[in-house]
Amino acid sequence: MREFVLFTRENGKRFVRADLIARCVNAALWISHGLRKAKIHVVLAGAEPPKVLSFGNEMRMVSPDERSIIGWADKVLHGRDNPGIRAEEKSFQQLVKEKAEEGKALFLLHEKGEDIAEAELPEESVFILGDHIGLPKAEERFALRYKAGKISLGSKPYLASHCISFINITMDRAQA
Amino acid sequence: MREFVLFTRENGKRFVRADLIARCVNAALWISHGLRKAKIHVVLAGAEPPKVLSFGNEMRMVSPDERSIIGWADKVLHGRDNPGIRAEEKSFQQLVKEKAEEGKALFLLHEKGEDIAEAELPEESVFILGDHIGLPKAEERFALRYKAGKISLGSKPYLASHCISFINITMDRAQA
Repeated sequence: MREFVLFTRENGKRFVRADLIARCVNAALWISHGLRKAKIHVVLAGAEPPKVLSFGNEMRMVSPDERSIIGWADKVLHGRDNPGIRAEEKSFQQLVKEKAEEGKALFLLHEKGEDIAEAELPEESVFILGDHIGLPKAEERFALRYKAGKISLGSKPYLASHCISFINITMDRAQA
Repeated sequence: MREFVLFTRENGKRFVRADLIARCVNAALWISHGLRKAKIHVVLAGAEPPKVLSFGNEMRMVSPDERSIIGWADKVLHGRDNPGIRAEEKSFQQLVKEKAEEGKALFLLHEKGEDIAEAELPEESVFILGDHIGLPKAEERFALRYKAGKISLGSKPYLASHCISFINITMDRAQA
């Protein structure tokens, strides 16, 4: 199952870029009239201790709009249950280490990476993306230590959610 | 300049799928920290008479989130000016005819269309998409009379906004 990691500076109390997070969750999981088998982990690096909010296709009662997605993120952070959303105290580095140890292939979206058309993308991949400010250098170096491959979608800087849509459809097409 | 047409049943009074419209506008126009040279025409077929809301890269003061995009749609429908947003009394068929007469290549997103990788997509293209219910048969037939080519992104049914992101990045890559 493919997975996405979105690094953000959010603290989980009041979302500064709720729109960005909701669009990424939407792009990772929704297809027309349903959810795809995938996961997206939203890192809240500004929380103390840092947290990870994970969304998967087992989600119930969540609509594809910002208000519903962020409303549910908030509820789960405050203890409410949803079978497809989980909040854990975990850092970006712990998450990356965990995914590498699970045997996933890690990829870092990076303007200077290998072109995505040249890369081999197994279904068991984890794609790491930064928010509007980008992935901090220390986190990038950490992921590279776990053999993350740098891949690029081209020379234009795209929104994270658009990258996720492109990767999802590209992988579906390669597998069809 | 590439353009997108999103057919909806909205009446422009109270948006039923504000999220869908906002995501499509976002996907058509935003890149990281800026707007791309493109246009998206949102058909409000439920209005009497029907209206078309057009968004372009000359937009000012609009943020990439749902509330800002829909807030501005609403303001312009009520007479406020924004250099990149226009509301006109126009039907889907009038819009399609107009674009064909401008010499644009029309494409209809369609599950049974030619695979997008096989299609030649000039920059002066107009891509026609339906909302969550889809494009009515009569409108599809009308576009086909104006020589719209049917293209497909694959066998999965994708959200319109994800199709737009995929088309934009695919065309950028082909032109790079």
